[in-house]
Amino acid sequence: MPLDLPAAHAAATIRESFTRVRGDSERLIKPLTPEDCMIQSMPEASPAKWNLAHTSWFFETFILKSHAAGYRPYHNDFGYLFNSYYNQIGERHPRAERGMLSRPSLEDVLSYRAHVDEAVVRLLERADDETLAAIAPLIVLGCAHEEQHQELLLTDLQHGLYQNALMPAVYKYDNDDLVEAPALDWREMEGGVCNIGWEGEGFSFDNEGPRHKVYLHPFELSNRPVTNAEFIAFIEDGGYQNPVHWLSDAWDVVNKEEWQCPLYWRKADDGWRQYSLFGEAPVNPHAPVCHVSFYEADAYASWAGVRLPTEFEWEAAASLFPLKGRFLQNGSPRRPAPAEGDDKLVQLFGDVWEWTASPYIAYPGFAPPAGAVGEYNGKFMSGQMVLKGGSCATPEGHLRVSYRNFFYPWMRWQFSGFRLARDCK
Amino acid sequence: MPLDLPAAHAAATIRESFTRVRGDSERLIKPLTPEDCMIQSMPEASPAKWNLAHTSWFFETFILKSHAAGYRPYHNDFGYLFNSYYNQIGERHPRAERGMLSRPSLEDVLSYRAHVDEAVVRLLERADDETLAAIAPLIVLGCAHEEQHQELLLTDLQHGLYQNALMPAVYKYDNDDLVEAPALDWREMEGGVCNIGWEGEGFSFDNEGPRHKVYLHPFELSNRPVTNAEFIAFIEDGGYQNPVHWLSDAWDVVNKEEWQCPLYWRKADDGWRQYSLFGEAPVNPHAPVCHVSFYEADAYASWAGVRLPTEFEWEAAASLFPLKGRFLQNGSPRRPAPAEGDDKLVQLFGDVWEWTASPYIAYPGFAPPAGAVGEYNGKFMSGQMVLKGGSCATPEGHLRVSYRNFFYPWMRWQFSGFRLARDCK
Amino acid sequence: MPLDLPAAHAAATIRESFTRVRGDSERLIKPLTPEDCMIQSMPEASPAKWNLAHTSWFFETFILKSHAAGYRPYHNDFGYLFNSYYNQIGERHPRAERGMLSRPSLEDVLSYRAHVDEAVVRLLERADDETLAAIAPLIVLGCAHEEQHQELLLTDLQHGLYQNALMPAVYKYDNDDLVEAPALDWREMEGGVCNIGWEGEGFSFDNEGPRHKVYLHPFELSNRPVTNAEFIAFIEDGGYQNPVHWLSDAWDVVNKEEWQCPLYWRKADDGWRQYSLFGEAPVNPHAPVCHVSFYEADAYASWAGVRLPTEFEWEAAASLFPLKGRFLQNGSPRRPAPAEGDDKLVQLFGDVWEWTASPYIAYPGFAPPAGAVGEYNGKFMSGQMVLKGGSCATPEGHLRVSYRNFFYPWMRWQFSGFRLARDCK
Amino acid sequence: MPLDLPAAHAAATIRESFTRVRGDSERLIKPLTPEDCMIQSMPEASPAKWNLAHTSWFFETFILKSHAAGYRPYHNDFGYLFNSYYNQIGERHPRAERGMLSRPSLEDVLSYRAHVDEAVVRLLERADDETLAAIAPLIVLGCAHEEQHQELLLTDLQHGLYQNALMPAVYKYDNDDLVEAPALDWREMEGGVCNIGWEGEGFSFDNEGPRHKVYLHPFELSNRPVTNAEFIAFIEDGGYQNPVHWLSDAWDVVNKEEWQCPLYWRKADDGWRQYSLFGEAPVNPHAPVCHVSFYEADAYASWAGVRLPTEFEWEAAASLFPLKGRFLQNGSPRRPAPAEGDDKLVQLFGDVWEWTASPYIAYPGFAPPAGAVGEYNGKFMSGQMVLKGGSCATPEGHLRVSYRNFFYPWMRWQFSGFRLARDCK
Repeated sequence: MPLDLPAAHAAATIRESFTRVRGDSERLIKPLTPEDCMIQSMPEASPAKWNLAHTSWFFETFILKSHAAGYRPYHNDFGYLFNSYYNQIGERHPRAERGMLSRPSLEDVLSYRAHVDEAVVRLLERADDETLAAIAPLIVLGCAHEEQHQELLLTDLQHGLYQNALMPAVYKYDNDDLVEAPALDWREMEGGVCNIGWEGEGFSFDNEGPRHKVYLHPFELSNRPVTNAEFIAFIEDGGYQNPVHWLSDAWDVVNKEEWQCPLYWRKADDGWRQYSLFGEAPVNPHAPVCHVSFYEADAYASWAGVRLPTEFEWEAAASLFPLKGRFLQNGSPRRPAPAEGDDKLVQLFGDVWEWTASPYIAYPGFAPPAGAVGEYNGKFMSGQMVLKGGSCATPEGHLRVSYRNFFYPWMRWQFSGFRLARDCK
Repeated sequence: MPLDLPAAHAAATIRESFTRVRGDSERLIKPLTPEDCMIQSMPEASPAKWNLAHTSWFFETFILKSHAAGYRPYHNDFGYLFNSYYNQIGERHPRAERGMLSRPSLEDVLSYRAHVDEAVVRLLERADDETLAAIAPLIVLGCAHEEQHQELLLTDLQHGLYQNALMPAVYKYDNDDLVEAPALDWREMEGGVCNIGWEGEGFSFDNEGPRHKVYLHPFELSNRPVTNAEFIAFIEDGGYQNPVHWLSDAWDVVNKEEWQCPLYWRKADDGWRQYSLFGEAPVNPHAPVCHVSFYEADAYASWAGVRLPTEFEWEAAASLFPLKGRFLQNGSPRRPAPAEGDDKLVQLFGDVWEWTASPYIAYPGFAPPAGAVGEYNGKFMSGQMVLKGGSCATPEGHLRVSYRNFFYPWMRWQFSGFRLARDCK
Repeated sequence: MPLDLPAAHAAATIRESFTRVRGDSERLIKPLTPEDCMIQSMPEASPAKWNLAHTSWFFETFILKSHAAGYRPYHNDFGYLFNSYYNQIGERHPRAERGMLSRPSLEDVLSYRAHVDEAVVRLLERADDETLAAIAPLIVLGCAHEEQHQELLLTDLQHGLYQNALMPAVYKYDNDDLVEAPALDWREMEGGVCNIGWEGEGFSFDNEGPRHKVYLHPFELSNRPVTNAEFIAFIEDGGYQNPVHWLSDAWDVVNKEEWQCPLYWRKADDGWRQYSLFGEAPVNPHAPVCHVSFYEADAYASWAGVRLPTEFEWEAAASLFPLKGRFLQNGSPRRPAPAEGDDKLVQLFGDVWEWTASPYIAYPGFAPPAGAVGEYNGKFMSGQMVLKGGSCATPEGHLRVSYRNFFYPWMRWQFSGFRLARDCK
Repeated sequence: MPLDLPAAHAAATIRESFTRVRGDSERLIKPLTPEDCMIQSMPEASPAKWNLAHTSWFFETFILKSHAAGYRPYHNDFGYLFNSYYNQIGERHPRAERGMLSRPSLEDVLSYRAHVDEAVVRLLERADDETLAAIAPLIVLGCAHEEQHQELLLTDLQHGLYQNALMPAVYKYDNDDLVEAPALDWREMEGGVCNIGWEGEGFSFDNEGPRHKVYLHPFELSNRPVTNAEFIAFIEDGGYQNPVHWLSDAWDVVNKEEWQCPLYWRKADDGWRQYSLFGEAPVNPHAPVCHVSFYEADAYASWAGVRLPTEFEWEAAASLFPLKGRFLQNGSPRRPAPAEGDDKLVQLFGDVWEWTASPYIAYPGFAPPAGAVGEYNGKFMSGQMVLKGGSCATPEGHLRVSYRNFFYPWMRWQFSGFRLARDCK
């Protein structure tokens, strides 16, 4: 079992947290129509409705079916429809065809959620100590899982709505102060043997551990992520046309996909514009660049004569700072804003995930939990890159400094930016 | 101008017909949810909502924008979103991504329809003779076009809902009498020089003419289309496994798509079952086989030692019989039922479209109308096969004996069956 | 049996013809290296070596194995390697991977040919009347089949060598007189009921019959095929950029393949140049345009305000003229040259195959021969278009006015041009 | 400049080494026909002829053109034809179409080689000290590059010939003693801070450095690579059917490619058989498993309850042993044989490359050399996995313990096997 919760995590605390997380998901879709909640624009993105149902399926499958005596599943076919990728649970609806599911309706999915919520709360209320010990870590895991899907719901939705020439603004504009980001500067970090990975009490994902030693050579980090203005300089210097900056795989993608700028950007007569869930607007030069792939982050770094940090460098540095930043709060979407403050390192947390130079592989001693619940992080340890620090779409409280997000190096629809690193001379 | 309407076709008649057709489309979607109306399961199929909007775009583009002084388009971007394939009208939303359009909502599309309907009716009410002469044929064409999209709406919807493991029944069951089809028999037809193509007054599509002479050798037709029971005999004789019956292109598709039976069929423990908009049900042995491709129709005929009729043979024979049959009435869907009667030829019209052996090409002397409205039938005269006779999803009154429907030989999602032919000895 | 040979077709005549055809194939590859004979540039094209072996396989499979007592196949695996598409003969090497066969070597394939030749000649020498009656039509068929592969050998080779930036000239230049083609003119033809298809003694392919009646409306044909100069006018008028001239399927291909001119053409600083087996040279303005698809032929006709002739119109007209023209002689390749003469219709035969407006389907009463040898023409009667008249790569003596060649409408690597037609006013 | 050669590396030594390497390449193709040398079976594999020409192009481009005054390139178009992937050098022939190049012939390519050889030797003979200092590292690099292509020539050739149902044996059988491999055992290794990467004099590739520190936790390695017999146990336990052992990406490939066993294997009536350049033969149970992908290696390890070693673990352990093993000698191909000896670790070098758990990324402080010659190893640092130890197709003397080979995790056509690792308890 990957979770080792203190006894103090009593039923009431868990219930409160469960109720809040479940409510946040539903707050997110309040301004959306049932049709908005059905769009699927690529196999990697799911309809909002599917995200809402799948997170419920998780609680139903791993908790209610095993631990709630007499629990009656809401619908016999939902196991087939809303399993994401758990081979050990059985056959499932093809991922690329989630957008075909007009039925169950959004309304029906919300009923499904209510059915599951009620059963989980009832189970928590009546659980004896032994049952509680068994289900508590699974509920905490289910909540963390649902928080991940809150972020995906927003990024998948943005990608889906972007296919529409109407460029719909589905959330109200959250006015960002047009502050100026601090100038880019380099901060030196010591090397040596460091400890990396989750340590301490409370929940973490299995892939964040075990805590282990890593040898770091001295390095420098940029004080903040690269901004839109800086990235525009790369574009205008012909960055997307010059193979010398790009990894070989990257250059293939640039040409095949005809990339000329970050995702959601376009060059209008009066300058670069960017689509978001708040509609299309001018690119804010001071905000961190967002919706770039690892390939683009790496190419920018190469163009700038530096490199990306490893996940170990990033974590060693970031663990010196308090975990606070611009996160998703109360189901109310935001967008990346300029860095603020004059700390040694700023904007480490929130706003944009930061691509690292580290492929996503297992830490020494890693072993996934047994059973289907272990088909979670381990089987994706191939071909993806680690991102750190969370974004403005990551629910507040979800992140840890040891948190390892991971996506394929060509993916751009997450809130992904990057910070620079270089070797000490 | 492809339409030559008699003077008697006065504004009132046209308005009545316009209002009926427009209403029928909306009656069709009454039992559907906005989510049902958004599914797109393949590039060739469109969401119901898109079908509803596109038919309105047709009236707006070809009639209101040119002839209704002061007409204000409902929305500036709808021209881009709802143009189907008219290159001369301009750029358009990619066909394969019509299912991404959560906005405009179904409700908004219905408002768009009301806006267009009101403008067309007002235009008709106020039109002087000259305007009426100009717009009457276009409105009649627009109504015929909308009737075509009523059939597509149903076939596209069925294909979309079929992707869902829930196998939704969206319409109420229309109980068919379980009559037995008459035994298959052969009817001899005379040959010689025949006249083929539309003749007479009233509307027809450009591809139905000009009326011209064709030489036919004497032939025989089967009295009725092939039934499900007969087609099951082909399946059970290994028809889908034996290349000798199949055209070379067909055999490639059979293997690539792993065809084992008609579309929407599956073999259950208790026999063949078939999905339709009324849900899944046992295959009716007496009903005509439906949802087969030209390739399958041709393979069946080859297996049976005979062939398919040409469109000319079909039309020459069918023009001897009254045009009546099982069609779509009042926006209330039906499904193919067993043939009835003891006429020389039965079930020529309605129930299922009949594949012919004729590639869809121009009749001698054919020329499409000038301008964008001519981008209609002519540019598709390549690679498709002619189907005749209409189906249970073809609106009543839409068909003519000279009507030429056309689809690619591998397509199966229309209500398509077939009748047999053979040479006279 | 599709062949009904006169008794006079004695063994000696057949042997002479067999020996000549077999020798012609080998003369064609004399200037080539073993490596040239191995190129396969697309699934539809085969290596020269494969063409040489497959034609031998045909004699071995359909004649020697069945009729030559004690015949010992040259190699047990050659049946698998060199079967083209005969499902009834068994499994076969994947078509797209014929270029992988370094072994057998060209030398070995030539030994295979000698082995087969010797066995066929010996069989002919010793055959009694009954055997002769059985094998004569098959040998004549095998020779006709081999002649077809001589043309394919050249067109496949040209396509293969064209992939090479060196643009190799593998044959010596066959200097064409730079005569001027006669001006384009229209020739009126009568309509009425015509007889179409092979009639008479001697060999023909099954798809050329049965002879049957067709009704033709009066029409006009252009006196000669369209020339390169005329086609350049279409290009320079933006023909490849204007969708209005193109069939819908065609326009998709033009865009996907980025067609801007006929195959093998490129625009150099000093004008259009064209690759052939004689190397690259300036386009001859007076020669008929060649290496265009049906789609391009049809688009040109549309641009010119006319149309392509049907195969029936072409045959009815061409049967009034003697069958002579510029064909392949003695295994010595040629290229299309300007039309000559002032006949009513010129250049009907040889130089370039002429695309017709007719899809390739069965004639009334057509039935392929039983058994594997019948898997020849019939199973390709889907999706292809008829070409008439032969080309400069068609062996002399191979053609008949009833000959029906067929290719998909997007194919351009054959020696394919076109003539124009229009309706009489 | 990535190469820092000692002064003692005088012209004569370099010339001797150059001549030997160039000769070895040509010895490899002695038993092959020109047709064998032209096969290209996938974009990742090149024809032998292309490998021979490309390695010559490397010397011509990076040495002769820049440093040999008055050098006359052999052919103006060869720069286009034989550039592999150097964007900075210019446009090039498409990789997937290298098998189309019948011209230049093999004979011509051998002349090209002679032309280049002569010019390089002459340059070396006449070079002053300054020129020698400039060209020596490039010639050494060119020789190392050519040795890499000797291995690729063999693996590409094997893949090409495997497409042929004749299963050609192109080299004579090199009889392996049927020794039994030692039993699998575990060897403990200490952890701590280790030094990794090339150190010392002589040539190494840029990606082997800089030498740097890595922290290793104590671990165990298997004494030898996994054998065919052991891998067969995995197959027979349903290893290829059970998703629980496979990475998510791997499982997709297993299903898409329908993998059931290593590449080149098939199950015959009398057991597993394996194709190689020596023809098809029974799988040797004691030889190391070969032609498996990283995915299969990782799945096997997961099934066995252990893991693969990291490249750092492998290198730290292997650097304790002398670098000797079964390599390619004198252009005479071999195949993997059973491990021998009772050393702590055996068969570290030669026989089969060993997949590691390490993605191929830059070492701390890595920077590729400037200019086109630097487009070598760095731009491939994405998505690939590191292999260590060399194989029976790696030329003797080519390897270093710091050598980092890299391929995508799904690739199987190299001589790739694996060794197991596990954490110390």
